[in-house]
Amino acid sequence: MIYITRRERFNAAHRLFRPEYSDEQNLAVFGKCSNPNWHGHNYTLYVTVKGEVNPDTGFLVNLKDLSALIDQHVIEKLDHRNINLEVDFMAGKLASTENLAIGIWEVLSEPVSSLGAILHSIKLYETENNFAEYFGG
Amino acid sequence: MIYITRRERFNAAHRLFRPEYSDEQNLAVFGKCSNPNWHGHNYTLYVTVKGEVNPDTGFLVNLKDLSALIDQHVIEKLDHRNINLEVDFMAGKLASTENLAIGIWEVLSEPVSSLGAILHSIKLYETENNFAEYFGG
Amino acid sequence: MIYITRRERFNAAHRLFRPEYSDEQNLAVFGKCSNPNWHGHNYTLYVTVKGEVNPDTGFLVNLKDLSALIDQHVIEKLDHRNINLEVDFMAGKLASTENLAIGIWEVLSEPVSSLGAILHSIKLYETENNFAEYFGG
Amino acid sequence: MIYITRRERFNAAHRLFRPEYSDEQNLAVFGKCSNPNWHGHNYTLYVTVKGEVNPDTGFLVNLKDLSALIDQHVIEKLDHRNINLEVDFMAGKLASTENLAIGIWEVLSEPVSSLGAILHSIKLYETENNFAEYFGG
Amino acid sequence: MIYITRRERFNAAHRLFRPEYSDEQNLAVFGKCSNPNWHGHNYTLYVTVKGEVNPDTGFLVNLKDLSALIDQHVIEKLDHRNINLEVDFMAGKLASTENLAIGIWEVLSEPVSSLGAILHSIKLYETENNFAEYFGG
Amino acid sequence: MIYITRRERFNAAHRLFRPEYSDEQNLAVFGKCSNPNWHGHNYTLYVTVKGEVNPDTGFLVNLKDLSALIDQHVIEKLDHRNINLEVDFMAGKLASTENLAIGIWEVLSEPVSSLGAILHSIKLYETENNFAEYFGG
Repeated sequence: MIYITRRERFNAAHRLFRPEYSDEQNLAVFGKCSNPNWHGHNYTLYVTVKGEVNPDTGFLVNLKDLSALIDQHVIEKLDHRNINLEVDFMAGKLASTENLAIGIWEVLSEPVSSLGAILHSIKLYETENNFAEYFGG
Repeated sequence: MIYITRRERFNAAHRLFRPEYSDEQNLAVFGKCSNPNWHGHNYTLYVTVKGEVNPDTGFLVNLKDLSALIDQHVIEKLDHRNINLEVDFMAGKLASTENLAIGIWEVLSEPVSSLGAILHSIKLYETENNFAEYFGG
Repeated sequence: MIYITRRERFNAAHRLFRPEYSDEQNLAVFGKCSNPNWHGHNYTLYVTVKGEVNPDTGFLVNLKDLSALIDQHVIEKLDHRNINLEVDFMAGKLASTENLAIGIWEVLSEPVSSLGAILHSIKLYETENNFAEYFGG
Repeated sequence: MIYITRRERFNAAHRLFRPEYSDEQNLAVFGKCSNPNWHGHNYTLYVTVKGEVNPDTGFLVNLKDLSALIDQHVIEKLDHRNINLEVDFMAGKLASTENLAIGIWEVLSEPVSSLGAILHSIKLYETENNFAEYFGG
Repeated sequence: MIYITRRERFNAAHRLFRPEYSDEQNLAVFGKCSNPNWHGHNYTLYVTVKGEVNPDTGFLVNLKDLSALIDQHVIEKLDHRNINLEVDFMAGKLASTENLAIGIWEVLSEPVSSLGAILHSIKLYETENNFAEYFGG
Repeated sequence: MIYITRRERFNAAHRLFRPEYSDEQNLAVFGKCSNPNWHGHNYTLYVTVKGEVNPDTGFLVNLKDLSALIDQHVIEKLDHRNINLEVDFMAGKLASTENLAIGIWEVLSEPVSSLGAILHSIKLYETENNFAEYFGG
């Protein structure tokens, strides 16, 4: 079993809030992240997949394929986007790093299988001080 | 002459567009950065000041004071904010990295003088691939 | 199960030595780290906690709370301190990265529980070339 | 159980190709990495070992010893070398990051035991965007 | 006057040697970098340009254009290549970081002018410990 | 004219204080950095030299020589040392980043000349948030 990780990056806007709360309540719970005018981040994403090395190539997966797949399912949908308003797999969810990591897992799990590997983890940095990791289930 | 640099960080949303343009025109000129729903960045700011070492302290400036001053004049106004909508010194300006670096220079130049140092440069990273530098005038 | 990591930093002095050894013996065992006049590091600390996402907030824990808790129990005690002389939870222990990581685990485990999460790991960088990780038990 | 990681770096050339393929076939499978004139990387290697803290030293292993051992068995053989042509433990293998991580595991596993620790993982960065991890067996 | 910097990266092989020297002489002068079987690096390139902000766009130059231009004139020629054997603008030159920085300056200076900016500096990292900077003439 | 920079690192302890001040006065002026029990840092040093490329080698200076020279004159004296108590060129000076950068310039300027290059700048990071630069005179 070998593990391979690909790093990708995207920039997006978000806001943390519950629509049924007042601005004051949102500020109390979510702090500055509840700013109604949005703010944003340079997100860094590490996608780790696992499986056996293919003896014909020496690769677990061709990283060009893995990168293209992440680009299609994740980066295209998130980069220079508003996570609350424009990202189909985040509709109706709080735009936290935790939920975003879980959402990315859910859209990548099947496509990664199609490459002959198993999705192992999603690691998502919101800033250099904070990151979430999700290993499925 | 010695140069001292303080790094600070903030997260903000922005959009690059001209209000008199259509969305199509803005997209043609500004690319994905013109997304009407905003996107954002983790900005990293390096403020460099210069002057003589104070023989009583060994400092050019006390970095606690410099950091507090940057916090008051820049970070408080930008962090978790929308640069187009909420930042007084950026009102009416295109929210590019270039203009933001110049704007930060303009609000910091005088306060830095009050510490007995001279503002030397503003270096502003929008992503790890792009940064602007401004040396005044 | 989701994992969230918070990075914090502190600067401290330490010395590796056994008081019953001569300076020569300490030098033989601990190398330059045994210098009787102390040396120091910029330590980087990664605290990882795990648990379920709270559906009301989208958070596992509010990172402001986690950061405040790490600050109170760890950073306040270590930052700009001498690990051998001034840190209660390191009293009587060799001030190695290993022991410091274990000590930090022990002071953080209960407070993290009070936030409704489980402490998963302490990762402590002494330099960019060396780090220790502790997962409890 | 404590985990200690040592980072080391080396620069090497490699080429990904199968000798029985034509240049066109190699290009189709391995992309630009099949360039017959070689290309190369600054590799970053993280070696993680695990075990109990020695109460006499506060160390799991003396990092000076671990570093010397990695230097002798890995860095000396790879640094400023051609992985395809000059590295004994890679002879006859495709010079992928996956195979290189596995090869490094195999040459380090026994020497690490001689220090009284257990080799836990090899993490090998080919670029800042790609890395492989191997945990044995 | 504003300064904008774009970071790009490439991986390449090289060898430092003089053809009229024996292998022993090359080893004495160039050390491990003279290995006849090549070695390689992940190079990191910072291209800094300067000029006035365009009031219509807020940009000095559109970074998409600058990046495309660097890609065409530099990255396409160097990435996954052998600097000694395959790079037209390095033909007949010693493949040192110094000469490579100067060579990149020479191929970029005119194209940057065509964007309405002035090339200010080329900063080229061979490893995280070593870099060259060139400011022209 | 080409510029070459070499990065080196060292770990040291220091304290900021004036002996004629009480602990309270030192705390008021120097903050936590005045802790009488010392604290410390991982310092990162960038030494930049300038001059002409030697046509025989493609080098401004052989980096092996530059590194050896920095090691002899700076790293050996500072690494795992107490800056206030043990570093000859800092005797009687406040152990600030500013004074340390100036001190390093003074001990390196002549040795760099002996390599046929000119010392251009000393850049010294005390933490990733703070650094000093000195260009001589």
